[in-house]
Amino acid sequence: MSQISEKIAIRAREELFINIQPIQAGGRLTPEAMKAMIAYGDGYSTCDWCLKPFRLDKIRKPPIDEFHAELADFLGMDQVRVFPGARRGFQAVASTLVEKGDTVIVSGLAHYTEFLTIEIVGGIAREVPPNEDNIITGEATAQKIEEVKRETGKLPKLIMMEHFDYVFGNEHDIRGIAKVAKEYDIPLLYNGAYSIGLMPVDGRKIGADFLVGSGHKSFASPAPSGLLATTDEWAEKVFRTSRATGDLTGRRFEGKEVELLGCTLMGANLIAMMASFPTIRERVKRWSEEVRKSNRFVKEFLKIEGNKVLSEMPRKHTLTRVDTTGSFDEIARTHKRRGFFLTKELKERKIVGPFPGATKKWKLNTYGLTWKQVEYLAWAFKDIAKKYGIPVRE
Amino acid sequence: MSQISEKIAIRAREELFINIQPIQAGGRLTPEAMKAMIAYGDGYSTCDWCLKPFRLDKIRKPPIDEFHAELADFLGMDQVRVFPGARRGFQAVASTLVEKGDTVIVSGLAHYTEFLTIEIVGGIAREVPPNEDNIITGEATAQKIEEVKRETGKLPKLIMMEHFDYVFGNEHDIRGIAKVAKEYDIPLLYNGAYSIGLMPVDGRKIGADFLVGSGHKSFASPAPSGLLATTDEWAEKVFRTSRATGDLTGRRFEGKEVELLGCTLMGANLIAMMASFPTIRERVKRWSEEVRKSNRFVKEFLKIEGNKVLSEMPRKHTLTRVDTTGSFDEIARTHKRRGFFLTKELKERKIVGPFPGATKKWKLNTYGLTWKQVEYLAWAFKDIAKKYGIPVRE
Repeated sequence: MSQISEKIAIRAREELFINIQPIQAGGRLTPEAMKAMIAYGDGYSTCDWCLKPFRLDKIRKPPIDEFHAELADFLGMDQVRVFPGARRGFQAVASTLVEKGDTVIVSGLAHYTEFLTIEIVGGIAREVPPNEDNIITGEATAQKIEEVKRETGKLPKLIMMEHFDYVFGNEHDIRGIAKVAKEYDIPLLYNGAYSIGLMPVDGRKIGADFLVGSGHKSFASPAPSGLLATTDEWAEKVFRTSRATGDLTGRRFEGKEVELLGCTLMGANLIAMMASFPTIRERVKRWSEEVRKSNRFVKEFLKIEGNKVLSEMPRKHTLTRVDTTGSFDEIARTHKRRGFFLTKELKERKIVGPFPGATKKWKLNTYGLTWKQVEYLAWAFKDIAKKYGIPVRE
Repeated sequence: MSQISEKIAIRAREELFINIQPIQAGGRLTPEAMKAMIAYGDGYSTCDWCLKPFRLDKIRKPPIDEFHAELADFLGMDQVRVFPGARRGFQAVASTLVEKGDTVIVSGLAHYTEFLTIEIVGGIAREVPPNEDNIITGEATAQKIEEVKRETGKLPKLIMMEHFDYVFGNEHDIRGIAKVAKEYDIPLLYNGAYSIGLMPVDGRKIGADFLVGSGHKSFASPAPSGLLATTDEWAEKVFRTSRATGDLTGRRFEGKEVELLGCTLMGANLIAMMASFPTIRERVKRWSEEVRKSNRFVKEFLKIEGNKVLSEMPRKHTLTRVDTTGSFDEIARTHKRRGFFLTKELKERKIVGPFPGATKKWKLNTYGLTWKQVEYLAWAFKDIAKKYGIPVRE
């Protein structure tokens, strides 16, 4: 394998394999983003034309200002800023709204980064239970709010909620939850790490106060990158500018947005997001086809006896949690390579991505595969099953 | 000019020009970092081999764990983590150590990002006055600490101090300041945005509790990237792991470092830092030559009548603040292009970087130029001066 330097090998799994790794699919770069990486790689590359007011989101060359306006519009929100990852967007909101001892409502399937941003400011996360189908409903959210109110005498300060969770890729009742949030007058942060950049998302229609998206997870962008969009009303708070004054120099930094620490996502990562944006606009229109491919794969996958799908059915996302305890894990129990037999068999068929050695509960993502690759992928699993004598329905 | 996409032009100023922009010089990528951008551009590229304990700094392939160990050693500290920019390192320390109403000592020449990270947590920044040569001394720092103690009855919680500041590129008495910090038992954050990656920096010898460096400013890395190094003692606090528990699920995130929000600098940016690291190790040894080149340029630049250098002399850094009010600004006052005449004359000589239109006080950076380029740069300024009748000493 060729090397980048003595210790770092070239990464070529997207070129050499079909990659169904659960979190990598939506963050594969577009050719334009790849070019941006090459041309804007140098550290402060975006600062060539940084003129007054010396703010990243106001730079006109390359058209960073225009990108911000178009991105806000695309998301159905008034304003947007880019961040080094969705988690830094959660952090900006938590830091603005949550004080020590305050409660924040999260999903029982919430990503750990939400917990961490709440923990930093001394807040307390309280989880809404998913129902028996692993779906978070508006009703369950209302019940949790009431529970918090009873126990603490205060309403939660914020609701952070996934549209699609990272465990099952299930769709949660985000509109119902938004309605509940409005009823209780609690701001809602919509976690779109698995939706923004993949499917159409309109914050205004949803009724969200904040939208957070991930560049490297779903916007065909390098890590770290992400976005936080909000309304004009909330922008005044979460994008508030500095009020500090140097006691000696009298310096002020009135143009600098505090939670962004000034210029937040400079360089190639931002330009790559911009370069991928035209593709993103188009690809979200084809989301239903991606879902059809996901369902097509799952249908074939379930023909292998003992295979189960733990995510909701039919699939509404390309990320799916499966259970092969009754099929491939049966083989793993006596195979000398144990679970790694499956990893190896897949790799021999030029497929990578499932967690190495996993043969019980694991995740995969079919996003971005062609129909032909989806058929091939399904064939490969069935071929492996047959090889090991696992019955496969025709 | 070729395009990356419809709206984004190729950036080629490092290829087509001598670039003396003050903050871009140290962040130009190495060829290896450029390769890393290409091979590791896809979002979650660093997650291919993320196994237990599921922590970025523990990944062995590519050798991210080894890089962390070697980087800490290189900096003379016990532990290091990468961050999306130096500012996120300041934020982690401020968030850990500073509470509402606490005082933090900063330099009168402190970067605005330090102020912002203090403001977020409700702290109050107090500035140490530079002396008449624009140098911050240990003595002045001690005086400021005493002043704070008198006024508030409490000692400051933290000292954040630049080794070299962004205004003049002057070297401050960081060892003297560290001594004072020790005497008062106040932790010292060494801001190495203009030193780490350019010159040898040994945190232990300096006596710093925290070292913060910038990848995109001085480590030949893309933005955003940076690092925070510390001692084992402080690592327990600033790199503390999560103590949150899901009230419903009982979930815990014991491996996740709170202030890092888990995995902080993934993807191409981290691999580019790693890819540049062997070059960084070597280039810091040649820092004295970079300083000689800086002084060589300045010597020639001062032969233009009316030119002044506002930074300390002789130069100890490659970043220099100059004053051409008595030379080029005299021309600008009556030139139809005003200050932009100088920008244009430089550009015609294939030199870019000074703030467009600036002819009074402005900054330049000679870092990384060859001797030949330094001579050419000096010649170019003198040539422009002569063209406009400004006397030039031989």
